[in-house]
Amino acid sequence: METALASLKERIGEIHDLDRTSSLLGWDQQVKMPPGGAGVRAEQLATLERVAHEALTSDEIGRLLDKLATQEDSLDYDSNEASLIRLVRREWEKARRVPSELRAEMTRAASLAMPVWVKARQESDFSQFLPALRSNFELRRRYVECFDDYDEPYDVLLDDFEPGMKTAEVRAVFDRLKEEQVPLVAAAREEGDRPVRGVTFPLEGQKAFELKVIERFGYDPSEWRLDTAVHPFAASIAIGDIRLTTRYFDDNLDGLFGTMHETGHGLYEHGVSRELERTPLAHGASLGFHESQSRMWENMVGRSLPFWRHFFPQLQATFPEALSGASLDDWYRSVNWVAPSLIRVEADEATYNLHIILRFELEQELLADSIELEELPEIWNQRMQDYLGVEPPNDALGVLQDMHWAVGAIGYFSTYALGNVISGQLWEKLTAEIPDMHDQFEQGEFGALAGWLQENLWRHGRKFMPRELIERSTGGGLDPEPYLRYLRGKYPLAA
Amino acid sequence: METALASLKERIGEIHDLDRTSSLLGWDQQVKMPPGGAGVRAEQLATLERVAHEALTSDEIGRLLDKLATQEDSLDYDSNEASLIRLVRREWEKARRVPSELRAEMTRAASLAMPVWVKARQESDFSQFLPALRSNFELRRRYVECFDDYDEPYDVLLDDFEPGMKTAEVRAVFDRLKEEQVPLVAAAREEGDRPVRGVTFPLEGQKAFELKVIERFGYDPSEWRLDTAVHPFAASIAIGDIRLTTRYFDDNLDGLFGTMHETGHGLYEHGVSRELERTPLAHGASLGFHESQSRMWENMVGRSLPFWRHFFPQLQATFPEALSGASLDDWYRSVNWVAPSLIRVEADEATYNLHIILRFELEQELLADSIELEELPEIWNQRMQDYLGVEPPNDALGVLQDMHWAVGAIGYFSTYALGNVISGQLWEKLTAEIPDMHDQFEQGEFGALAGWLQENLWRHGRKFMPRELIERSTGGGLDPEPYLRYLRGKYPLAA
Repeated sequence: METALASLKERIGEIHDLDRTSSLLGWDQQVKMPPGGAGVRAEQLATLERVAHEALTSDEIGRLLDKLATQEDSLDYDSNEASLIRLVRREWEKARRVPSELRAEMTRAASLAMPVWVKARQESDFSQFLPALRSNFELRRRYVECFDDYDEPYDVLLDDFEPGMKTAEVRAVFDRLKEEQVPLVAAAREEGDRPVRGVTFPLEGQKAFELKVIERFGYDPSEWRLDTAVHPFAASIAIGDIRLTTRYFDDNLDGLFGTMHETGHGLYEHGVSRELERTPLAHGASLGFHESQSRMWENMVGRSLPFWRHFFPQLQATFPEALSGASLDDWYRSVNWVAPSLIRVEADEATYNLHIILRFELEQELLADSIELEELPEIWNQRMQDYLGVEPPNDALGVLQDMHWAVGAIGYFSTYALGNVISGQLWEKLTAEIPDMHDQFEQGEFGALAGWLQENLWRHGRKFMPRELIERSTGGGLDPEPYLRYLRGKYPLAA
Repeated sequence: METALASLKERIGEIHDLDRTSSLLGWDQQVKMPPGGAGVRAEQLATLERVAHEALTSDEIGRLLDKLATQEDSLDYDSNEASLIRLVRREWEKARRVPSELRAEMTRAASLAMPVWVKARQESDFSQFLPALRSNFELRRRYVECFDDYDEPYDVLLDDFEPGMKTAEVRAVFDRLKEEQVPLVAAAREEGDRPVRGVTFPLEGQKAFELKVIERFGYDPSEWRLDTAVHPFAASIAIGDIRLTTRYFDDNLDGLFGTMHETGHGLYEHGVSRELERTPLAHGASLGFHESQSRMWENMVGRSLPFWRHFFPQLQATFPEALSGASLDDWYRSVNWVAPSLIRVEADEATYNLHIILRFELEQELLADSIELEELPEIWNQRMQDYLGVEPPNDALGVLQDMHWAVGAIGYFSTYALGNVISGQLWEKLTAEIPDMHDQFEQGEFGALAGWLQENLWRHGRKFMPRELIERSTGGGLDPEPYLRYLRGKYPLAA
């Protein structure tokens, strides 16, 4: 068993090297690559993916897993070794079910759909995008057919992003969110304008200020980078090599909140136990758990009153022209303004989940053939009216706004709202266990928060399934109530 | 044959993707990576190298080459296809001769030797480095034993850097260079100080000025980058993705000359025909040919009087404090100052080859056991006295100055002087074919030069062996006389 385990670790280590290398190729592509490198970069990424996939699905990995099967039970369930074997077996079995031709076709269709979507969105014309979208959905149906252990087809798609999560669980949670959030938004929506508006935030000030903030969170240039990108993201090239990207706007501080969001992702990847390096355990447990961290640091920390009690004087000193006339309360209300809007990525905390629920429901109805792809724009606009009270004037501001379906990521959206739900559960737990947490925020101290998350979440990486991790970190199952309590606490008018 | 060729191209394309990806990992390591990524990066690089090497040496590549052998003669020798088959066969046969354990040991020994060399150089103590150096030399001897088609052992080492070149040819050329350059240096060496000295060149001015220069050479941000690095180099991630690095000094413009040097490397890689992309043909033909381009653009162009007739007024305008009192002649003499010195990388054009010849001779004598490794420092210092009239006061400024032997690159140094020799041959040819080339330099125009090199050298990539390429581009064999004529023309006092 020692030998089989060592062989497995060696092979899996190499696959992990290839995966992390793909991450670097992707980071470079969006951050540093001159435009002339684009064509060859696509080939390089495809080759890396193919080599890593062939290595994972090899017969040799299967033989090693077989050898380890008999002795696996003697290992402690929580041990790194048992967790590695569980994860590799799960991934090997999933990957072996999908013919490589289908996988290649899915990748190719997504690459082809991307520029079609870009043009369709530019011209706000859903009909241009329809054939490519149909193709992506058809390929996902064929993908679902590769599996047989699901309750409903959407389970298979969801499992790629939120391992082990069932559609029925998500639906129950989302129904509850919708029941509460639709009236909450209607009650909390603000009239008139934000108190702070029409001002300018010079870029150099933004860069200096956000560094001060994220260094308090844990950012450290010896193991992190921060660059700009058109579509911000976080990448981990190693546990000790975390790369954040952000962007800046002249007339608001959305860039700062975006940076705090990506820092949340980065802290999670950076907090994985170093013992798990060079294994597939060295990542966050799921997209939902990841989003719980990014949204926690952006919103529950970065838009909280204690946070701004500490930082607002420094912000005023950085931007005297914009903020000398504003009070802390003006600023707090401005960055927590509730206003139903058309675009998901610009949505406030009160409305965000409703954007997600709309997409989740549409994905399921499309897969169930209860609606047709042609009807999407019309149904989209009607639901926006029902859930948020706003109606998109065109496809660009409606059904064409997100790139996810273009790249074939169907089943992905729900993880954003699951992230909010999980963040609510974690927040309630750690508020109970660190009673003076908000006092610490007022002192600019976030170490107790980070320490709790490190101990209860980050260090585990992917050792446990999301379901297990919710239980271990919060003591219960997936539960929307804590997040709803958080929202009602934040927007008392709606409570 | 169509099918076998298509299969070969596909497999070779993937290997090329992996190789270029390694280049990106290496570039990032030296330019962007936070220090915390170092340990994992070494593993990632080792994995990429291993996967690419396994793919190249696979039985399948051998079978495809066998299939193509019979029909290969029907292809035009100059065609991309025939050139690809020749190169892949050569590389496959070489790679198959070396056991993978030996290759791994060579890589490991080099990694281990690097920090030992760094410390030994810091403490100027050759004896600390001796065991690691011995190990690298012993491994090279074992490497040589894997081959049987050589005249002398050094041929095998040289072939990795200058394919097909024989030690005997290099020795004959170097003997001739030495015969001329030792007295030339003695006669041309300058007394006293450079006319321009003790001044400051603000960094922002250096960056702005060098961009103006290299944009005239062909640098274009849509397909190039320029960053800083501790040890400057050029990398090509794709033909359309060329990355230069440089560094800056406060009190001189060595950074500018370094940038022009790396631009020469970049122009060569960027000038390869796009038809050759994603094949191993998409690189310069050899290290010697590469160095011919870097040294040509740095020295024959960038240190020439016509170049500075055009650029000196702009340089003065950029650095008025440093240069308002200097004449063009002062500046030209300052950047072409002949002064035998201890350090190769700081050597002027008149002395540079002698640094190389010293290393080439020592490498051969060590392989032939005619000197012992223990004797190296003493012999090094004696030869420096004989060839250049200077004597290193310690090992750091003598035998320990270069990292090449630490990383196992034995046989590499000679390509630097071969580059000078080849640059001389190309220069004489293109001066004859473009009679007004220097007049164009005076106008800041370098298009005719670049066009000639593109047509006669760059576009071919690695389609031809260095020997063939010298013949095709200059009409003769390897010949030191043109470079010697160039030197005598530049330093008339010594003529």
